[in-house]
Amino acid sequence: MAFTSQRPGEPTPPISDAHRGPTGVLEVPQRFLMGPGPANAEPRILNAQSLPLLGHMHPPFLKIMDEVQQGLRYLFQTDSKYTLCASGTGHSGMEMAIANLLEPGEKILVGNNGIWGTRVADMAGRFGAEVVELKTEAGTSFSLDTLTAAVEKEKPAVLFLCQGESSTGVHQTLAGVGDLCRKHNVLLLVDTVCSLGGVPLYADAWKVDAIYSGSQKCLSAPPGAAPLMLNDRALEKVRARKTKVRSYYFDLNLVGDYWGWFNSRSYHHTGMTSMWYAMREALAIVAEQGLESMWERHEAAHKQLWEGLSALGLQPFVEKPEDRLVTVNTIKVPEGIDWAAVSKNAMDKFNVEIAGGLGPTAGKIWRVGLMGYNAKPANVELVLAAFKDGLRQQGWELAAN
Amino acid sequence: MAFTSQRPGEPTPPISDAHRGPTGVLEVPQRFLMGPGPANAEPRILNAQSLPLLGHMHPPFLKIMDEVQQGLRYLFQTDSKYTLCASGTGHSGMEMAIANLLEPGEKILVGNNGIWGTRVADMAGRFGAEVVELKTEAGTSFSLDTLTAAVEKEKPAVLFLCQGESSTGVHQTLAGVGDLCRKHNVLLLVDTVCSLGGVPLYADAWKVDAIYSGSQKCLSAPPGAAPLMLNDRALEKVRARKTKVRSYYFDLNLVGDYWGWFNSRSYHHTGMTSMWYAMREALAIVAEQGLESMWERHEAAHKQLWEGLSALGLQPFVEKPEDRLVTVNTIKVPEGIDWAAVSKNAMDKFNVEIAGGLGPTAGKIWRVGLMGYNAKPANVELVLAAFKDGLRQQGWELAAN
Repeated sequence: MAFTSQRPGEPTPPISDAHRGPTGVLEVPQRFLMGPGPANAEPRILNAQSLPLLGHMHPPFLKIMDEVQQGLRYLFQTDSKYTLCASGTGHSGMEMAIANLLEPGEKILVGNNGIWGTRVADMAGRFGAEVVELKTEAGTSFSLDTLTAAVEKEKPAVLFLCQGESSTGVHQTLAGVGDLCRKHNVLLLVDTVCSLGGVPLYADAWKVDAIYSGSQKCLSAPPGAAPLMLNDRALEKVRARKTKVRSYYFDLNLVGDYWGWFNSRSYHHTGMTSMWYAMREALAIVAEQGLESMWERHEAAHKQLWEGLSALGLQPFVEKPEDRLVTVNTIKVPEGIDWAAVSKNAMDKFNVEIAGGLGPTAGKIWRVGLMGYNAKPANVELVLAAFKDGLRQQGWELAAN
Repeated sequence: MAFTSQRPGEPTPPISDAHRGPTGVLEVPQRFLMGPGPANAEPRILNAQSLPLLGHMHPPFLKIMDEVQQGLRYLFQTDSKYTLCASGTGHSGMEMAIANLLEPGEKILVGNNGIWGTRVADMAGRFGAEVVELKTEAGTSFSLDTLTAAVEKEKPAVLFLCQGESSTGVHQTLAGVGDLCRKHNVLLLVDTVCSLGGVPLYADAWKVDAIYSGSQKCLSAPPGAAPLMLNDRALEKVRARKTKVRSYYFDLNLVGDYWGWFNSRSYHHTGMTSMWYAMREALAIVAEQGLESMWERHEAAHKQLWEGLSALGLQPFVEKPEDRLVTVNTIKVPEGIDWAAVSKNAMDKFNVEIAGGLGPTAGKIWRVGLMGYNAKPANVELVLAAFKDGLRQQGWELAAN
């Protein structure tokens, strides 16, 4: 071989076909993703991903970024200018928030009642923060009294809470937490990956300083973009840092500039064209449906699910009704039942994903996600049919029917 | 409002419609992306992104990940088991490589002849590495003699080179560099974002230890996945680290496990479903076309472009023919010509993107990308027509015609 693009002295042996492949057009099976996420995407959102690409600095693309920012303001219920999507999955939003809000040596108080607190603690430690974990039993949330005592004792720079803990199905109330944090000059950071769009959230009214989320849950988009919001207090902290953010990719002083937060609009990285088309479309659907209607729809699916599960004799893992998350539902595996066989049967026979536990709940529960495009009556009925069939196969005596 | 999902004590004021929007189905204009990237995507690849989602741990999805890894082995011309895509744009591959290959205090020698060396130096500094920059004039590459002297003097842990410097249009030869690095126990890290698939690269034969790239250039996929490869030497370094990788999101000890590099295949983050469908499809197209055919096609487009540009009286920015990159072509702006007006006319009249310079070349050059789906005769003709028209408007006396 001889190419113009071959440099003198570079050997160009015959090309190895040892790993040549794959070939043919990709086909994928249809699945009902009723686990903790990703949920199925809206077809309209998937279609947006097949639109032709634009350049990452072209005016029509910058307009799409503006629309994403606007849609996020509505979704977060904030007037803050500082919204964007991190170019990665939900974890990238988490890492972006941690990397920017904390300087090395600063303290973060991590509410840890499942796997997300554990992960935030790990990340914050990697970025050089002092990490104090506040733990509570899996399946429970933190009371305002507990949080108040911990904040007063630890005097952290940042308090982390997870609104929807998907490993346990717990909904953490934020009532009073914003005021607590303002009083003690603490920044309040909240994970809303599996709750945003499914349950009430008012960033400004609740005084939440920073929030990140994911695209693939209640927003019905594919995984790959992490919605993020800072208010003025949080942004001020980032702008006044004494040390550079350790990650270039996640440095909000730079990424924010690409999104138009500051004076210029300069190139930082190449925006994720198709993924941001998807986010724009997901947020258009949110705006068209309205938050109230979305919250009601998620609540209705949750009620329908539990009416059916109760009739089958199944019990919620989360004891207190006010701790139960409507978007990710956790169900106790009854004594003597092989949870994995029920999940396998659901997938094999119904193409339905019913997940098991994770972290502290592994082997103890099933998890059923009712999120976004999947939070609707037909999907709930399918899940119930799969449970009924799977339990019957194991001789479970159904409470009703 | 009253919701089951409303927690006691959480205020739920009326939802603000102040930022409600956007609405309607997204439409985007058709553009010919003939700048340094992203390039236009293959329609077949865009179509793959509208396939229904799978779960990130579902066997059919893991099979797609396996196919991506296989396709990358062929593309990188390596037998290494350690290939994957970082969940982000090209910059995420850069950050992943830097974060994993260097421990705090270790030295990296950065070949800096444009903006990518500058960026690697910035990133490596943030991760606590000792950074030594080796610079050369914009538009030139590093000779093996220069590299040898620098490696012998600095004794770095890692040497960074950029195969295709998109800000200047320089193709850095790797001839002899792998042997140099082996001799001095240095890891060789190469950026191939705008060159991979367009020009020869043989990871194993050339003894390149670590490579990252981007999806949106010669692979004709959207931006959002960063192909990455480590060989055994590089992996050994990562496995034997004394300190945790500072980034959780990019820690290859964890991400690699999700991709099946080690014993288990455990959850690290939610894979980017649609984007990895796109990568699988892009790599299928690579395997179907074959690398030799791809390299020839890119070379042919480059030759066609320069025949046309020469006829218009335009000159290459890169002096030495053996330093010229075929995928991103840099063209001197002649004395008295308003480069921005030519670019604007190309976009307004022909829907063609012709980029200006960046960093050291801003205002001095145009940049024309001939990559992937765009490296074909019709696109080259369109670019030439746009140049001809734009130059004529400014009274440029054409050398021919």
